[in-house]
Amino acid sequence: MIVDSALYRAGARVQGDDDLAALRARACEPGDFVWVGVHEPSENEFQRLAEIFGLHPLAVEDAVRAHQRPKLERFGDSVFLVLKTLWYVDEADAVETGEIALFLGRDFVVSVRHGAGNELHTARLELEASRKLLGHGPGGVLYAVLDRVVDEYLQVVDELVVDVDEVEASVFSAERTNDASRIYVLKRELGEVRRAVMPLREPVARLAAGTVTGVPDGAAPFFRDVSDHLARAAETVDGLDSLLSSAFDAHLAQISVQQNDDMRKISAGAALIVVPTFIAGVYGMNFHHMPELGWTFGYPFALLLMATVAGGLWVWFKKSGWL
Amino acid sequence: MIVDSALYRAGARVQGDDDLAALRARACEPGDFVWVGVHEPSENEFQRLAEIFGLHPLAVEDAVRAHQRPKLERFGDSVFLVLKTLWYVDEADAVETGEIALFLGRDFVVSVRHGAGNELHTARLELEASRKLLGHGPGGVLYAVLDRVVDEYLQVVDELVVDVDEVEASVFSAERTNDASRIYVLKRELGEVRRAVMPLREPVARLAAGTVTGVPDGAAPFFRDVSDHLARAAETVDGLDSLLSSAFDAHLAQISVQQNDDMRKISAGAALIVVPTFIAGVYGMNFHHMPELGWTFGYPFALLLMATVAGGLWVWFKKSGWL
Amino acid sequence: MIVDSALYRAGARVQGDDDLAALRARACEPGDFVWVGVHEPSENEFQRLAEIFGLHPLAVEDAVRAHQRPKLERFGDSVFLVLKTLWYVDEADAVETGEIALFLGRDFVVSVRHGAGNELHTARLELEASRKLLGHGPGGVLYAVLDRVVDEYLQVVDELVVDVDEVEASVFSAERTNDASRIYVLKRELGEVRRAVMPLREPVARLAAGTVTGVPDGAAPFFRDVSDHLARAAETVDGLDSLLSSAFDAHLAQISVQQNDDMRKISAGAALIVVPTFIAGVYGMNFHHMPELGWTFGYPFALLLMATVAGGLWVWFKKSGWL
Amino acid sequence: MIVDSALYRAGARVQGDDDLAALRARACEPGDFVWVGVHEPSENEFQRLAEIFGLHPLAVEDAVRAHQRPKLERFGDSVFLVLKTLWYVDEADAVETGEIALFLGRDFVVSVRHGAGNELHTARLELEASRKLLGHGPGGVLYAVLDRVVDEYLQVVDELVVDVDEVEASVFSAERTNDASRIYVLKRELGEVRRAVMPLREPVARLAAGTVTGVPDGAAPFFRDVSDHLARAAETVDGLDSLLSSAFDAHLAQISVQQNDDMRKISAGAALIVVPTFIAGVYGMNFHHMPELGWTFGYPFALLLMATVAGGLWVWFKKSGWL
Amino acid sequence: MIVDSALYRAGARVQGDDDLAALRARACEPGDFVWVGVHEPSENEFQRLAEIFGLHPLAVEDAVRAHQRPKLERFGDSVFLVLKTLWYVDEADAVETGEIALFLGRDFVVSVRHGAGNELHTARLELEASRKLLGHGPGGVLYAVLDRVVDEYLQVVDELVVDVDEVEASVFSAERTNDASRIYVLKRELGEVRRAVMPLREPVARLAAGTVTGVPDGAAPFFRDVSDHLARAAETVDGLDSLLSSAFDAHLAQISVQQNDDMRKISAGAALIVVPTFIAGVYGMNFHHMPELGWTFGYPFALLLMATVAGGLWVWFKKSGWL
Repeated sequence: MIVDSALYRAGARVQGDDDLAALRARACEPGDFVWVGVHEPSENEFQRLAEIFGLHPLAVEDAVRAHQRPKLERFGDSVFLVLKTLWYVDEADAVETGEIALFLGRDFVVSVRHGAGNELHTARLELEASRKLLGHGPGGVLYAVLDRVVDEYLQVVDELVVDVDEVEASVFSAERTNDASRIYVLKRELGEVRRAVMPLREPVARLAAGTVTGVPDGAAPFFRDVSDHLARAAETVDGLDSLLSSAFDAHLAQISVQQNDDMRKISAGAALIVVPTFIAGVYGMNFHHMPELGWTFGYPFALLLMATVAGGLWVWFKKSGWL
Repeated sequence: MIVDSALYRAGARVQGDDDLAALRARACEPGDFVWVGVHEPSENEFQRLAEIFGLHPLAVEDAVRAHQRPKLERFGDSVFLVLKTLWYVDEADAVETGEIALFLGRDFVVSVRHGAGNELHTARLELEASRKLLGHGPGGVLYAVLDRVVDEYLQVVDELVVDVDEVEASVFSAERTNDASRIYVLKRELGEVRRAVMPLREPVARLAAGTVTGVPDGAAPFFRDVSDHLARAAETVDGLDSLLSSAFDAHLAQISVQQNDDMRKISAGAALIVVPTFIAGVYGMNFHHMPELGWTFGYPFALLLMATVAGGLWVWFKKSGWL
Repeated sequence: MIVDSALYRAGARVQGDDDLAALRARACEPGDFVWVGVHEPSENEFQRLAEIFGLHPLAVEDAVRAHQRPKLERFGDSVFLVLKTLWYVDEADAVETGEIALFLGRDFVVSVRHGAGNELHTARLELEASRKLLGHGPGGVLYAVLDRVVDEYLQVVDELVVDVDEVEASVFSAERTNDASRIYVLKRELGEVRRAVMPLREPVARLAAGTVTGVPDGAAPFFRDVSDHLARAAETVDGLDSLLSSAFDAHLAQISVQQNDDMRKISAGAALIVVPTFIAGVYGMNFHHMPELGWTFGYPFALLLMATVAGGLWVWFKKSGWL
Repeated sequence: MIVDSALYRAGARVQGDDDLAALRARACEPGDFVWVGVHEPSENEFQRLAEIFGLHPLAVEDAVRAHQRPKLERFGDSVFLVLKTLWYVDEADAVETGEIALFLGRDFVVSVRHGAGNELHTARLELEASRKLLGHGPGGVLYAVLDRVVDEYLQVVDELVVDVDEVEASVFSAERTNDASRIYVLKRELGEVRRAVMPLREPVARLAAGTVTGVPDGAAPFFRDVSDHLARAAETVDGLDSLLSSAFDAHLAQISVQQNDDMRKISAGAALIVVPTFIAGVYGMNFHHMPELGWTFGYPFALLLMATVAGGLWVWFKKSGWL
Repeated sequence: MIVDSALYRAGARVQGDDDLAALRARACEPGDFVWVGVHEPSENEFQRLAEIFGLHPLAVEDAVRAHQRPKLERFGDSVFLVLKTLWYVDEADAVETGEIALFLGRDFVVSVRHGAGNELHTARLELEASRKLLGHGPGGVLYAVLDRVVDEYLQVVDELVVDVDEVEASVFSAERTNDASRIYVLKRELGEVRRAVMPLREPVARLAAGTVTGVPDGAAPFFRDVSDHLARAAETVDGLDSLLSSAFDAHLAQISVQQNDDMRKISAGAALIVVPTFIAGVYGMNFHHMPELGWTFGYPFALLLMATVAGGLWVWFKKSGWL
């Protein structure tokens, strides 16, 4: 589904046109370019675009079928970039992923989106507001999209930092919480983020080094900035992953300590009942000569003895930390 | 056993010939090539082929004896490639492996298969249907075979993703399941996949970089595509492996938590019987003056007392989560 | 907030001037340079500086917004460096972080600080005392700041060494201490340090290799010295991290051993009461012919028997290490 | 001790000679070379050889003293190679190691062996049977020895695969086996293999790349083959090592699960005896009015009650998997 | 403190001189050099040497203050090397560290030692005995010192191998030993060794590659030998470290197995007393019609019954491995 299409000239949007071939034909002045935005296109639908803009069949296949790895490919003098998009769904504490494929030629940009959460419309609006960036042509669009996507990575990573902090608090809290599954889920989310961030580093590094033909020379510092943000996301993810591993270890230790505490509590509790039972056993013996049995207050005495012994044990266990 | 042999000219199959030497002699026009497919050949059988096509003795040895590492070798102006094939056997939840060796010369392809599950016949049929790909000669055959094998890797990996999801669900389910052995088996399967995928990356990267002489220049983007799929398989396998490690850790934690729960349940259960036993012990004492013993309803009173205490303990343990 | 600004000529401070544009204009002789120190500037405030010194917008953005990754960037013929600062807060046993951004041109240095604990004022005073270093211009300032920051890293690392030693002592002490959380917190602090140290290594290596234009050639040995200190900090951090992992493992082992000890102690304790209870049970049997029951000293005999058996068990358990 | 010495000319063995200096003097035609095989030589003994063949003192020292790291060194125009040999001792399930040092000059090979299990005699016989290989001179000998040694690595690795399979079966068997020590021993053996295989990879890679002067150009594919086998050994060893780690984890999990099962079995067993004891306690109470006590069949009734309750518990525990 | 100083000419020691400036002045013939050995010099003391030999201030600072990282630096045409020395203190089973700094110029060597255990005096004596090595000038001294220090590394590593073997034996012994702390301490020692060995590898590799100006060309094979020994030390340390990790895991498993064994022993022991107690309980019931109570040998019968049942349980537990 074509979402938006327009011709840009000298940093400004010129009226759109539904006929893309005609639109491209009008991009005849230097710096002119057409930007077509597509969302989850069918194969047939996209075939038409591929013909108009001369897109390479392999790239077209990748763009139509989602679930690609982030990558940057050159076909002749056009560039093909695949990106994963990430966003954090608060209700589910989960990271969702989408995909953007970008075709960049001298005079056109074709952007293809998959997935619900990520949209490029506001990116286009912001870009249209920045005459200067737009004036850099398709390279400017590339930067704008990359910058936005990587900023979203950082936002997702910040949410995960919060989640890890919560898990940490829960691990070291006195409550019995099932932190193992939360840690597992977070590790899984981090894997998701890693799958988006890591393979993108090399393409962005190439852009930052200015070695990708078709991208303007002066753009390198901007891509270095993106590369830097990407590196920050990657480092934070690695840091969180290793923190979670430590947190998991700590959780295991807490379980063991707790089991030990429980075991000692149980034993102390058992002693409180077993020792009086022993006393009852003694006074249940059938010896003919047991003076206490004949005492008037023998029975109360026995009960008192039991209570005293149990109380003494209680105090002793309390003091030695077993209860 | 020779499975199929044919001469290809201008992207089309020309009639086959059982006499391979004659067949090769007919491949005299530019672009002509012979493709001989062999399955688990005996040493003698293959020696004959080696003479006809001038194959290098070291490569012949590797092709006849299976269990080689994936690799790409150049001998003079011919190329020798060894691949592992993978397929997933649903009944056994297991990954099976086979092997394909390919000899590529200017005017011939010799493919050698080992193992039952992988066949090249449909690959040949598909290739014969694509005049264009076939027109690229031995390089086209190389691409077709590689593409197919790597696509099968991705299918196997997808099945493993499902298996890991199942294990994960089982680990966090309330049932007592022996997940350790399932995780172990899956790790083993992942090792199998890794052994096929990892050593193939370097050869395919060389093909993708276009630095292997004997492979046509324009083919590089196609091999880059294969390389990319391979990278995806490799990354997914790594991701699954680390997920399994986390799942195993979580499994260990679950066992500990369960043991703790069991221990507390047992202790609570013990208390329910030990405390009434104590009461019985008290009324089994032989003191002469124990008023309750003379009560008409002393016995029911004692039973009621036991039931009340046990019931109170039950409620208390239920509330504090021990039962 | 501008903290200090001054013109330096031939290694000495020339009187300051509040009007920075005028100050820079006076830096007209070779070797002259202006050093402006700023603390947590607002965007507007800093915009003015950026104009006077011609700072690159991307760098300005990074300098104003803190939480950047350590990095070294070149924009035209000026250099932009971001550093993390670390200091150890004794009361909290915690590592705090701040940030310094440095802009270096041919004739100016702009230093921007974020965070409370790190100050550059004494660095400036020391530098002003060293005419020779100051004579090297902005490169000298760069060295002085880097040297100071990295020295602070080493101090922080030394404090962490002490903390790890304490944790180690606590793990192997006989007391029941909750070392898991202390180890976790220390791992977290080490992660903090790593986040400052690791990304700085590459920029400093470039300075040490003398490949950063704008930094004087003869300065390389000095930056090699800084690079070396940085490597020392990094290696110590890695060493501490792996020591902590081992300490954690040892802690887990201690918990298990302790639980085992407790279990045996409890069992031995239980035996001391259960065996006499059994004896009491025997003499509570109602057989008509039990000679002991009629003995004059039957009761004392039974009590003595119980005490003897319990005493014997006690000695036996003590000797076999169960009590 | 000199084991064998001979002159080889045009791919055939010429009669030996005890006087090595004379033997070497006779190696005057192109392609002629002398091969001297030595076993655990004394320093003096070897000094004599060193003089005759002009061996470098550092290499001589390494050859006489065993326990060197595998390495390839060039001294002038001769090559010095140190190899570890491995063999598997079935009785002990253990990997034994030996050492071979090879000196290769234009017209001589000196091979020095340490350790009992590896012998070069059959390698020499095989080589003498292959006129072609022998015709390649010292380079051919180098290949023959390397090929044989690396093939032995693969055999040892195959034995270890079998051992790991056994351990695996034992870990997941229902029997209580002490797998921890078997896994440890296997890890140790793998370390032994790794110490032989890993450092050899770089020298063989150099031989395979054809960058070692003194080794004939056409030999590269043969050394690539060796390199490939070495890579296979290395990958298998890594795979086994990580499998063993997983197996160990699984073993730990099995122990925990078993402990849990035992604990529940014990508790269930305890319940079977504790509950009847409680019933006995009830009928041991001394209330005056307990109707059952007067029943004719009160005693059998009580025994039946105990049996019924115990039987019911048994069934219940069986059904809930505790017994 | 200056320990020794002398002029060396043509491979022999010429009489020493307390006035170092004069001594250096006499080193005027080609190949002459002065070797000054210093032990823990004060800053002032060393300043004087620095002036005489023209040492770089940064190197002087590092040489006077110990606790540097091993490194090789070039200042102009002189070389500065820092080494860690290691030795094993048998009484404490501990690795001690010291430090050596070496300044090498065309005509001088200044060696600075820190710490007690390492001395260079015997190295100097040995060197003086070897006219040939001494004839290589400062480069020969460098080799002699490096060779000696690295040989000491190997000795320390050999001691640690013995320690690891002991720990291993202790882990798998039947005794209850606290191996966790021994393993921890050994890991710590290995870290100490690693800190000496690892950073030295790169400098020695540079020496072995012959790329350090100021070191004679022909010396490369000698430094390759040192490099090789260093690699051996590093590999052994890595191997020991991973063995210790495995040993620790095995230790954890042993603890668990032991706890399990203890638990079953305790339960079996409990059964031996609880079942007879139940029998006593039965004969303590107050039914009017209990035939056994009236038997003449009822009491002995009951005792025998208890003993029989306990004996039977004992046999059964023994056979099933619980006792």
